[in-house]
Amino acid sequence: MTDTDDAFELGPTRYGKAEVRLVHIAKSGPERTIKDLNVSIALSGDQAETHLTGDNAKVLTTDAQKNTVYGLAKESGVRSPESFGLLLARHFLGACEFITHARVAVEEYGWDRVPGVNSRHSFQRSGGPTRTALVHADIDGTASVVSGIKDLVLLNATGSEFQGFYKERFTTLPETKDRVLATAVEAQWLHDSADGADWEASYDLATDALLRAFADTYSRSLQQTLYAMGREVLARAGALREIRLALPNRHHFTVDLEPFGLSNDNEVFFPADRPYGLIEGTVRRAGAVPDERPWN
Amino acid sequence: MTDTDDAFELGPTRYGKAEVRLVHIAKSGPERTIKDLNVSIALSGDQAETHLTGDNAKVLTTDAQKNTVYGLAKESGVRSPESFGLLLARHFLGACEFITHARVAVEEYGWDRVPGVNSRHSFQRSGGPTRTALVHADIDGTASVVSGIKDLVLLNATGSEFQGFYKERFTTLPETKDRVLATAVEAQWLHDSADGADWEASYDLATDALLRAFADTYSRSLQQTLYAMGREVLARAGALREIRLALPNRHHFTVDLEPFGLSNDNEVFFPADRPYGLIEGTVRRAGAVPDERPWN
Amino acid sequence: MTDTDDAFELGPTRYGKAEVRLVHIAKSGPERTIKDLNVSIALSGDQAETHLTGDNAKVLTTDAQKNTVYGLAKESGVRSPESFGLLLARHFLGACEFITHARVAVEEYGWDRVPGVNSRHSFQRSGGPTRTALVHADIDGTASVVSGIKDLVLLNATGSEFQGFYKERFTTLPETKDRVLATAVEAQWLHDSADGADWEASYDLATDALLRAFADTYSRSLQQTLYAMGREVLARAGALREIRLALPNRHHFTVDLEPFGLSNDNEVFFPADRPYGLIEGTVRRAGAVPDERPWN
Amino acid sequence: MTDTDDAFELGPTRYGKAEVRLVHIAKSGPERTIKDLNVSIALSGDQAETHLTGDNAKVLTTDAQKNTVYGLAKESGVRSPESFGLLLARHFLGACEFITHARVAVEEYGWDRVPGVNSRHSFQRSGGPTRTALVHADIDGTASVVSGIKDLVLLNATGSEFQGFYKERFTTLPETKDRVLATAVEAQWLHDSADGADWEASYDLATDALLRAFADTYSRSLQQTLYAMGREVLARAGALREIRLALPNRHHFTVDLEPFGLSNDNEVFFPADRPYGLIEGTVRRAGAVPDERPWN
Repeated sequence: MTDTDDAFELGPTRYGKAEVRLVHIAKSGPERTIKDLNVSIALSGDQAETHLTGDNAKVLTTDAQKNTVYGLAKESGVRSPESFGLLLARHFLGACEFITHARVAVEEYGWDRVPGVNSRHSFQRSGGPTRTALVHADIDGTASVVSGIKDLVLLNATGSEFQGFYKERFTTLPETKDRVLATAVEAQWLHDSADGADWEASYDLATDALLRAFADTYSRSLQQTLYAMGREVLARAGALREIRLALPNRHHFTVDLEPFGLSNDNEVFFPADRPYGLIEGTVRRAGAVPDERPWN
Repeated sequence: MTDTDDAFELGPTRYGKAEVRLVHIAKSGPERTIKDLNVSIALSGDQAETHLTGDNAKVLTTDAQKNTVYGLAKESGVRSPESFGLLLARHFLGACEFITHARVAVEEYGWDRVPGVNSRHSFQRSGGPTRTALVHADIDGTASVVSGIKDLVLLNATGSEFQGFYKERFTTLPETKDRVLATAVEAQWLHDSADGADWEASYDLATDALLRAFADTYSRSLQQTLYAMGREVLARAGALREIRLALPNRHHFTVDLEPFGLSNDNEVFFPADRPYGLIEGTVRRAGAVPDERPWN
Repeated sequence: MTDTDDAFELGPTRYGKAEVRLVHIAKSGPERTIKDLNVSIALSGDQAETHLTGDNAKVLTTDAQKNTVYGLAKESGVRSPESFGLLLARHFLGACEFITHARVAVEEYGWDRVPGVNSRHSFQRSGGPTRTALVHADIDGTASVVSGIKDLVLLNATGSEFQGFYKERFTTLPETKDRVLATAVEAQWLHDSADGADWEASYDLATDALLRAFADTYSRSLQQTLYAMGREVLARAGALREIRLALPNRHHFTVDLEPFGLSNDNEVFFPADRPYGLIEGTVRRAGAVPDERPWN
Repeated sequence: MTDTDDAFELGPTRYGKAEVRLVHIAKSGPERTIKDLNVSIALSGDQAETHLTGDNAKVLTTDAQKNTVYGLAKESGVRSPESFGLLLARHFLGACEFITHARVAVEEYGWDRVPGVNSRHSFQRSGGPTRTALVHADIDGTASVVSGIKDLVLLNATGSEFQGFYKERFTTLPETKDRVLATAVEAQWLHDSADGADWEASYDLATDALLRAFADTYSRSLQQTLYAMGREVLARAGALREIRLALPNRHHFTVDLEPFGLSNDNEVFFPADRPYGLIEGTVRRAGAVPDERPWN
């Protein structure tokens, strides 16, 4: 080692148990309700000793964090990823004085009831998009909630063009007045407050707004569609401050059938895996003060 | 090389283009219909020259096979994975005299219409199970069709026990009278004939039979459930000869909460990734003569 | 249910614990040796009762199978995937009289020693190809061993052409005298006998033969390269009866740079994900009697 | 829509082509050298029009960005992910006046020469860790380079303990004086300057420092090991300002063999998939001013 110890310093740290899989089943007579979550915890605080000397007196083990997920699920049940994330984050702040900040990320996988005589306790995994929640709670009493969705795959078979773009040496893409537009929506939206929201109703409204804005916007670019989607969520879902979207352009290339003596009027497509365009953007309520912390 | 060339011989071969992604969009006025397939082709025949000498005169290129997928989709449309697979397989037999057998495997991914004013051309990918078809066609005029489903994830929250099993040195599993039973169904069923079936109706009936048999069977083992599912498909879907199922046991372990002073009456579960039990079985119409060829 | 019970019958079945992850660490003074395996077990035998009535008296639980992997690893150590697979398969035949056939599939992941003062107990996962073994043992005393490799990714930057292939309506591929040839080798080879082989030496010889035959064969087609690879393994690795190879053609397309006023003399390539050619073939020692059972 | 347009505003945006796969082969007589990259571009600038009105006059298409990757690879070759990323980022700033910031992320996959007569043009993909580079260039003339590595899987078979941690209600983990410690290193380090570095030498030094610090640190916690690894990289690799590490704790649980009458003195382990501890931390050169921009 060529430098003295004074030459370096510990910067920000966080640690926790990631991907704690939890299935919670609630009973009400013969009826069962299922919640299927993937919970990732990251705690911050006074962790210098364990990093610098290996003294672990201020380490709440990640094993105990995992146990906490299961224990609190039993004690309090699971209503929504947002509320369960808040419960956990605030618990950790109270559990140890050396924890000053807690971040809890939750994924929820949907299940539908199987039709038939046993629909009260038989389920099929939905398989569609994943619902997400990202919760921060701080020792100063503040908390934030970001809700979201990912792997929501949408396609417009028409109603999309792409023209009038900039041309330079490497631009060979032909302009088009009618193309397939497809994407896998990843969206996250920040609530005004961590308390008091009806998380289920808010999620349903936001998802519906995303679907409708995608379908109902005549698209001149995926960028335009992105803004329309974000704007519609803020307009309809209520008590939201900001939404961030990442929209991969899942290119559907029209196959050239001319060598075989065939036309192709937007009927036969090759959907490519890679590369893909990726459009990322933010829509905010006017006057909202940007703050990166809830998104970390 | 220590042996003479006479010491070795070429055994069975096949070759083709795998994972040709095809999206076909049909138009009827303002209405669009979408079919989303993944097609894998494997051709067999007189291929000794290319393997032994590099003479490619009897090689139909895999690139041409890919083109054929797109060309035939344009010329004939896409109704079902079974019918499109048959069309392709029989085409290849006629395309080159040196091709004597064609195998076409197709996956189909579902799409739902987005509700709203543009539901005629806006879609959301369903995300649930994948529909499959495996077609063989031979130069002797015979053909076979195996239909199937995979990634159909099912869970019974109760109505499942596991008791009375064999005990030996390494058996420590406690018996249980009430457990969660979950699996990701992979099933394939062989049709009596390659022609004349209503592939859509048959698939819907088979899928419904799988769901209902899983939900409605009080399960003493996943093996028992497997047989019940297979039997129900054969009984209801009609004109089927045999069904094969592979059911991974997606273990949901009851978390031990006693160290925290909590009970756990089948409420809080840890769904494990690996290892998993894997139950594989076959149900046949009585008297059906076993034949491996349609399943290869 | 529209049919009587007599209408259906149970066909072949097998069951077991899949993907049992095992890391075994042997000590010799301060020196450690690591073996990292993924073991999948499938047992067959008299399993009709559990399928038809739910009577589990003849079910050796998959949990006990998992325990057996760990118990035998402790008692006997782990030398090679082949020998450990044989040990397990023969154990299960002796453990319960109702088990008449055992299939054990093993993957091994390699680790290298980290250079430096602690190389005796510090390791880095190799990350290259996975070594495989597939073992069958039957109550009649017979056993078979198939060894293999997968995810061995190879590329020849030159020394490959593709010409003289069949032309028909859908053939548009240009002929080429110089192309990049790349593949991810999946190969399995059947040993003459399940006993007495030096599994490590045999694997090293086979892998070296695959590498050298791929590199040293001037290729007129991937089919030709496949046969050369299979032949070389049989010729060099000894006491092998048959080898099966599956070679995806990982197409490296030459990018057309002419629109930008640039040439491209096999310098700039786009390696595509899908679709891909898939060449499958078998090479046998002359006169070997084909037998599908060891490969199932 | 319940709000007026004035109620919302466009926040930060970026867009580009992601996962452009490039294989570049350089020739020197019969000798070939291969570079295998995955390039993701994200451009920022005056993009309000395309988002708000669909006017694409200031959109450099992502297709053109892809073409640029291939064109510049031809014109300038590919030496390192860092230098190629810088070349691209600075090119885009000059290509269009409305682009004011460019971010280029590059992954590099390693290839080794195959031994033998054709080692000059035959390669095997290494399969080990992936090398990464993240480059930012701004219209104000500044640029930053972050180099990194991921999927570097390391394991210490001994020389690791975990004791003296905090105990509360949910803490049941036993203390241990001797455990297996394993992780998949993801590390990124920020260079003092975007110009003048020997990127190859720097990467080799940093990787060697990570390996040696992991192996040579007697570990009281993974946190302690993380700091030691980060410190060693800064101390040895030179001209670095900061390093960030994310270390998943790949738990290797000692299997309880007592029910089978067997001991287990750290010989037989179950490596779990999920959940896993995740330790994240930063080490900085003393006095370095934190700046998030190079890491975005």
